[in-house]
Amino acid sequence: MSAATCSTGALRGPARVEINEVAPRDGLQIEPIVVPTDAKVAFVDALSACGFARIEATSFTSARAIPALADAEALMHRMQRHPGVRYTALVPNLRGLERALSCRPDEVNLVMSASETHNRANLRMTRQQSQAQLLAMIAEAGAAGVPVNVSLSTVFGCPFEGEVDVGAVMDLAARFADAGAAGITLCDTTGMAYPNQVAAMCERFQSKLPQTGLTIHLHNTRGMGLANAVAAWETGVTRFDAAAGGLGGCPYAPGASGNVSTEDLVHMFDCMGVQTGVDLKALLGIVGGMSGLVGREVHSQLLSAGPRLRTHQAPAWLAEHFAGQG
Amino acid sequence: MSAATCSTGALRGPARVEINEVAPRDGLQIEPIVVPTDAKVAFVDALSACGFARIEATSFTSARAIPALADAEALMHRMQRHPGVRYTALVPNLRGLERALSCRPDEVNLVMSASETHNRANLRMTRQQSQAQLLAMIAEAGAAGVPVNVSLSTVFGCPFEGEVDVGAVMDLAARFADAGAAGITLCDTTGMAYPNQVAAMCERFQSKLPQTGLTIHLHNTRGMGLANAVAAWETGVTRFDAAAGGLGGCPYAPGASGNVSTEDLVHMFDCMGVQTGVDLKALLGIVGGMSGLVGREVHSQLLSAGPRLRTHQAPAWLAEHFAGQG
Repeated sequence: MSAATCSTGALRGPARVEINEVAPRDGLQIEPIVVPTDAKVAFVDALSACGFARIEATSFTSARAIPALADAEALMHRMQRHPGVRYTALVPNLRGLERALSCRPDEVNLVMSASETHNRANLRMTRQQSQAQLLAMIAEAGAAGVPVNVSLSTVFGCPFEGEVDVGAVMDLAARFADAGAAGITLCDTTGMAYPNQVAAMCERFQSKLPQTGLTIHLHNTRGMGLANAVAAWETGVTRFDAAAGGLGGCPYAPGASGNVSTEDLVHMFDCMGVQTGVDLKALLGIVGGMSGLVGREVHSQLLSAGPRLRTHQAPAWLAEHFAGQG
Repeated sequence: MSAATCSTGALRGPARVEINEVAPRDGLQIEPIVVPTDAKVAFVDALSACGFARIEATSFTSARAIPALADAEALMHRMQRHPGVRYTALVPNLRGLERALSCRPDEVNLVMSASETHNRANLRMTRQQSQAQLLAMIAEAGAAGVPVNVSLSTVFGCPFEGEVDVGAVMDLAARFADAGAAGITLCDTTGMAYPNQVAAMCERFQSKLPQTGLTIHLHNTRGMGLANAVAAWETGVTRFDAAAGGLGGCPYAPGASGNVSTEDLVHMFDCMGVQTGVDLKALLGIVGGMSGLVGREVHSQLLSAGPRLRTHQAPAWLAEHFAGQG
């Protein structure tokens, strides 16, 4: 746990956290429409002004697999880079890494699944094949001087296989950390994580790999997104993936909702006195325009309800009803 | 905290909790349609078979104020009482208490708000008037041998006034406990609570009133419902209000969503290894029929996504694609 702990309230955790905004990649990749590059550039630029620690801008995948992100190079070149924000991109294979490196990302995010069936379905490789590719990619990115993060999918459960072995997850994380990955993201790909599971895995990770940056990636499929975030935070986790408007999902888990929404997460940490560096008002302005961006209604709980201290007018009849009373 | 603590995972809390199902009262009172008494009886009877510790069946309020619950006596007389379930009813005033007592509830639940404006808007009394009535009602119920719980609304924030003074909440709770209330419910009426606030208030309550049963009533308005439930549980809280299908809301907080949904809460505790006594499968069967009950679509996240270990078929192309591979 960070030396600076949050002093408000009975729960203890770090006083500051970092938010990694993943909607431009993890959100837009699954939307049924292709957002024009101009609109993506404007979206990323607006997010850049909000104060995120990281923005995952795009994915260097094949245009055939994910047509929605076929403009990865154009986006990376045209977006404005704000000082203080690290721009990262998902990279699924060596070909993608070469494309990514030509765009000077501040970091690349590699990905594989902890469960065999999900890895095959999502990446069309066995875990063994993925692992070999990732090790080669870590070496190549390292040679280019670009830090690497590895996102491990389905670590809290697999939509095909059910429970996933925690020891195997830790071994995988350790192999990539040993090979030079600066960070690991533990991903609850389809919202199967629950609070004490998250806390236990985060404790184990930090104890085993104290020098490796740990990020938690949560979905809200079964309502536990923020509960899991607090559980991770209580163990000292300071980095969280989230998607504005709760975009995202998983094509292999019907009924699964999207990522934990950034505005809900930032609002909660704001309430708790935990600094995120994110300007919630600016973020809500962006979320308010997201239905236009993706061409469908984006429902944001926080945008509907407003931040907790946005008070309402008392009913007009009150004053008359209580006239003369204390 | 209870002597028996949950041994699974890195978070610690009680090994068992009790769920108080409030949908028949807190949910149906705000629905735009009046559910026929037959359907209510069937609803309560079905809930009774699920294993709840308590069911808040109805409210003895004026038929003019809440026409949807005008059949309180009929429901209380016609529903089947299951052994092991405590049937409680909300009672807003002395007239209501007399009606309630004639129906032999196992418990009555009185209510007032911690904030002046919400109390006036919701109960049309000043807090001083409400407090005097509640003290008289505690005495009358006590004389009739019926245990009293007092639900304190807006203790984590008021939609009209904003922050609510915690010391005043504790004084109010202590006054009713001293007068003979067996239990107090701290209500997050419009979803303004956040996790370390909930934990701090629950700790303070249990330290000040260790002999008084503490229930937490949460809404999911800003996505923090389950996070707040875990925060309370971590301080030792064992009683939770929840509404099947997430019914409920507050007429004075536009945009506010309903109560924490019982199925989400039970599912989370199931995952965590915390016993609730509630049969989730039976409950989900009821939730699946609730759209018919209230005549509008009731969206349940858990019903859509399924419990976390409900696995999916792997894509059909996988077997062929990986034929001959490891």
